[in-house]
Amino acid sequence: MDAAEATLSELMQGTGYREDGVPVPVALQNGQHLNGPLPDHAEGQHFLKEAFRIILEEALCQGTDTKEKVCEWRDPEELRAILDLELRDGGESHDQLLRRVRDVAKYSVKTSHPLFFNQLFAGVDYHALAGRFLTETLNTSQYTYEVAPVFVLMEEVVLSQLRSLVGWEAGDGIFYPGGSVSNMYAINLARYRAFPQVKLRGPWAVPRLAVFTSQEGHYSIRKAASFQGIGLGNVFMVNVDERGRMIPEDLDLRIELAKMQGAVPFLVSATSGTTIQGSFDPLDRIASVCEKHGLWMHVDAAWGGSVLLSKKHRHLLNGIERADSVTWNPHKMLLTGLQCSVFLLKDTTNLLKRCHCANATYLFQQDKFYDVSLDTGDKSVQCGRKVDCLKLWLMWKAVGTQGLEERVDKAFTYTRYLVEEMKKREGFRLVNEPQFVNVCLWFIPPSLRGMEDSEDYREKLSKVAPNIKERMMRKGSMMVGYQPQKGRVNFFRMVVLSPQISQEEMDFFLDEIERLGRDL
Amino acid sequence: MDAAEATLSELMQGTGYREDGVPVPVALQNGQHLNGPLPDHAEGQHFLKEAFRIILEEALCQGTDTKEKVCEWRDPEELRAILDLELRDGGESHDQLLRRVRDVAKYSVKTSHPLFFNQLFAGVDYHALAGRFLTETLNTSQYTYEVAPVFVLMEEVVLSQLRSLVGWEAGDGIFYPGGSVSNMYAINLARYRAFPQVKLRGPWAVPRLAVFTSQEGHYSIRKAASFQGIGLGNVFMVNVDERGRMIPEDLDLRIELAKMQGAVPFLVSATSGTTIQGSFDPLDRIASVCEKHGLWMHVDAAWGGSVLLSKKHRHLLNGIERADSVTWNPHKMLLTGLQCSVFLLKDTTNLLKRCHCANATYLFQQDKFYDVSLDTGDKSVQCGRKVDCLKLWLMWKAVGTQGLEERVDKAFTYTRYLVEEMKKREGFRLVNEPQFVNVCLWFIPPSLRGMEDSEDYREKLSKVAPNIKERMMRKGSMMVGYQPQKGRVNFFRMVVLSPQISQEEMDFFLDEIERLGRDL
Repeated sequence: MDAAEATLSELMQGTGYREDGVPVPVALQNGQHLNGPLPDHAEGQHFLKEAFRIILEEALCQGTDTKEKVCEWRDPEELRAILDLELRDGGESHDQLLRRVRDVAKYSVKTSHPLFFNQLFAGVDYHALAGRFLTETLNTSQYTYEVAPVFVLMEEVVLSQLRSLVGWEAGDGIFYPGGSVSNMYAINLARYRAFPQVKLRGPWAVPRLAVFTSQEGHYSIRKAASFQGIGLGNVFMVNVDERGRMIPEDLDLRIELAKMQGAVPFLVSATSGTTIQGSFDPLDRIASVCEKHGLWMHVDAAWGGSVLLSKKHRHLLNGIERADSVTWNPHKMLLTGLQCSVFLLKDTTNLLKRCHCANATYLFQQDKFYDVSLDTGDKSVQCGRKVDCLKLWLMWKAVGTQGLEERVDKAFTYTRYLVEEMKKREGFRLVNEPQFVNVCLWFIPPSLRGMEDSEDYREKLSKVAPNIKERMMRKGSMMVGYQPQKGRVNFFRMVVLSPQISQEEMDFFLDEIERLGRDL
Repeated sequence: MDAAEATLSELMQGTGYREDGVPVPVALQNGQHLNGPLPDHAEGQHFLKEAFRIILEEALCQGTDTKEKVCEWRDPEELRAILDLELRDGGESHDQLLRRVRDVAKYSVKTSHPLFFNQLFAGVDYHALAGRFLTETLNTSQYTYEVAPVFVLMEEVVLSQLRSLVGWEAGDGIFYPGGSVSNMYAINLARYRAFPQVKLRGPWAVPRLAVFTSQEGHYSIRKAASFQGIGLGNVFMVNVDERGRMIPEDLDLRIELAKMQGAVPFLVSATSGTTIQGSFDPLDRIASVCEKHGLWMHVDAAWGGSVLLSKKHRHLLNGIERADSVTWNPHKMLLTGLQCSVFLLKDTTNLLKRCHCANATYLFQQDKFYDVSLDTGDKSVQCGRKVDCLKLWLMWKAVGTQGLEERVDKAFTYTRYLVEEMKKREGFRLVNEPQFVNVCLWFIPPSLRGMEDSEDYREKLSKVAPNIKERMMRKGSMMVGYQPQKGRVNFFRMVVLSPQISQEEMDFFLDEIERLGRDL
C-alpha cells in the first residue's frame, strides 16, 4: 500500500514523468510497475501504415495481376524453413516484422487473382475490403446495441433486404461465420418447433428423428446431424436426377420409408447450387412434398442464393419463398470476402430467440435504458459474434442492387462463353450442361482420345486431373479444383464467378489445360 | 455462337478494345456483354487508401485518445435516421461512400479506448491489427494446404505453442471463431469417445447423458447442451464457494446424483476465469473427481487461459495439464482482436478428425501431390474456416512470449492498485476480493450510506448501476458493465485488461463513478 500511495503522490507532484512527459516506471510493492511504458500508438500506427503499403503492393497489386503467379508453390518442408514460424521469448524488430508481412503475402495463394478458380469464392471488391478493415479496427461483438449500435441496426436492414429477395415480407435471421453452422441453425429450429421439449430434456424425450437431403447436398448436413445429436444414419440421402437435382418423388418415398422404420421426419434440406455441379433442386415441388408431410423446409442456398439478385436467372430458385429457412453466403458469389453467411428465417414468432436464449444477465440486462429487443445476441448459439454485415452493406451501397445483379448475370454469361468455346476444342468433355457457373469437365489428353473402350481408360483418365493440377500449382499459372463423384472419375470443377474476369482468362484456362495435359 | 465467335475474332484483331486499351463491350447472343468494363483496380485501391486514412484518424487516433469520447451515444431511432442504412438500386459516389465510412466509425463504440471496460476484450495491438488486415486481404479458407499453405503451417505452430503452455507435449487443436463453439467441440468429442455409436446412430443408441459445470460457468455450456442434443435439463449445475469457484465435493455428489437418476455422466466443464467474477475453479481437485468417475475433463479457459503466460500467476490454473481439452480465447486478454479462439486437445489418436470427418471428395482428395494430412479442414465441424492464427502469430513475433507475459502481469498489478484505491474511498464496496482482473463492486451513493438495514435498500441499490450506466453512456465518458448475480443486486463488473491503461484511467474510473452517482 505504501508504495502505491507513494506512486500516486509522486504522480500528482509530477515526479513520475521524465522531462519529455513519458511516465517513469515506479515499483509497486509486488515488484510490478505502475505507469510502465504504455504502448506507443504513434509507433504502432507507423507499423500499420507500412504494413498497409506492403498489403497494397504485394497482395493487391501483384495479387490481381495476371502477369504474376496465382501461387508461389513451396513444398511444406521448404515453406516451414523459409517462414521461420517458431515463437520465441523475445520480440523482433520493425524491419523483421515487415519482412514477415511480406513473406506471408508472398507465399499465400492469391485468391483475388483473376486466374483463381479453385473454390466457390474468388476476386476482390475494394469497398467490401474497406468495410472489413473498418470492422477489424472497430473490433466489437454483435450482441448488444450498447457495444455495436451501428451494426445492430445495419444487420437488421441487410437481413430484411435479403429476406425480401427470398420473397418474404417479414421474418428473422442472423449472420453467422459460415454456411455449415447456418445449416445447423435450421436443424435446431426445426427440431425445436416440432418438439420443444428437446431443448430441456434432450432427444431422449422424443422418437428417433430423420433429416432428408440429396446425395449431392453439402456434407455439412451430415456433419450437423452428427454434431447435433441426430446421427449420420438418420440423414436420408435422396436420389438425384442426371443433372444432380433432388428427385421430389424419391424424397416422398424416403419420407415414407423413414416412417416405416420408426423414425420421425422433421426437416428437408434442399440445395440451390450444389457444391460440385452447381445444381438447383426443384424447390417448388419439394415444398409440396414438405407440406404434405408437415416438414420444415430448409434451403441451403449458400452457393446459389446470390442468383436471387438476377431477374433473368432467379427462376432457378422458384419456390424458395415457400421454405421455412434459407442459408445464403454472400462471401461466395457476391465477393464480400470471408466470412459473410446469413441464416434467414420466415418465422415471425421469435423462434430464433425462444430456441436459443439462455438469458445471460451480464449481457442482456432487462433494466437497460434503451429498447432491449435490440440486444440480439441471445438469438445466437455463440456468445461473441463478429460483425459480418458491414462489408456487404458498404459494397451494396457502392454498386447498388443493380451492380450486384450485373455481376451475377456476368458470371452466367462467361460460363456460357466458356462452355461454347470448350465444345469447339477436341480434348474437353463436359460432365453435364451447367445450370450455374460450375463447369465440370474432363480433359482427355491426345493419348487417350478414341480409347474410351480400352480396359484401363478410366484408370488413366482418373490420373489426368491430379497430374495437371500438380503442374499448374508448381508453375503457379492458375488454380482450379478437381474431384471424383459417384461413378465419375476425377474431373475438373471450373468456377466462373469473379467479375474480374474477361474473355482472355476463359481462353487462357482452356489453353493452359491443353498445354499442361498434352503429353499425359 | 456467331456473336461469341465474332467477339473472339474481334479481340484477336484488336478491335475489341478502345484506343486506350480498355475493352469495348460487345454484345453476346443472350444480350449480355463479354468484356464489359472490368472492375478498376486502381480506382478500388484509391478508395481503400482513402478509407484507410479515415480508419487511422477516426477509429485509431481519436478512438484511443482519452480526451475523446468512448462512444457517441444516439438513441436507436436517431441513429437510424443519421445512418440512412437502406440499400437501393443504384450505387453511391466515392465521396458519399467515404462519408459512410466516417459515420460508421463515428457512431461505433471505441473498444480500443483506454476507458472501455465493458467486455472481456479491449484495447488494440497494432501488430495484430496488421495481421488482421493481411488476413482480410488474402481472403482464404483454412481447410487445405493448397489454398492456405502459410496458414496451415502457422496454425500448427501456434497451437503447439499454446498446448505447451497448458503443459502438453503433444496433442491436437483447432482455431474456431468463438469460445462457445469451442466448448461444443469438447462436448462432441467427449460424447464420441465415450459412445462412438452416437456419430452414426444418434443419441437414441445410448442412455441419457449428463454434463456438469458450475453455477458460475459460462452459459455457452447450456446453449451447447440444447444445440447438441443433450438437453438443458441434463446439465447439472455444481455449487460454488463464496468466491465463485466450483466445489469439487459437490461435483462428486452431483455425479452420483445423476447416476442415481439414470443418466450417464460423460463430461465436466470446469472454468478458469468465470465471466462475471473471474474465478478459477480448483482444477487439480476437479481432475481427481473426473478420474475417479472416468469423465472427460474440459476447461473453459476462454477468459483465464492467458494467465498461463504468467509465471507468477499461472498457479491459478494448476491442474489444467490433467484436462482432456481446453478452450482459450486469445482475443480477450491478449488483444489479438475478435475473433481468435482455440480449442486444444490432449488426444493424440486423431480423435478430432475421426469424430468430425465427412471426407468430402471435392476438398480432401486423397490423390494430391503433397502430404494430405496437412488438409486439416475435416477436423472441423464447419467447412470454410477463417484464418485466425496470423494476428496472434504476428503479435507474438513482435513482443515475444515475454512481452505477452508482461501484459498479463500488468493487468493483475493494475487490478491490485484499483482495489486498494477503492478501499480508501467511502462509497465503494467490493463484491469479493478479485482472483483475477474482474473487479466486481457496488457504488453506494451518499443517500444510501448507512441505510443497509432499511427496507428498500436493496431495491434502491439495484437501480444505482443502471442509472450510472445510462449517464456514462449518454456522456460517452467511459463504459463499464453491470449485472445482478444470484442474490446480489446489480453491481459493476470492471475489467482491467488492456495494457494501454495507466494509473490515471484507474483513478478516473473511481472519480467518474462518484461524479455520476453522487446525487442518486
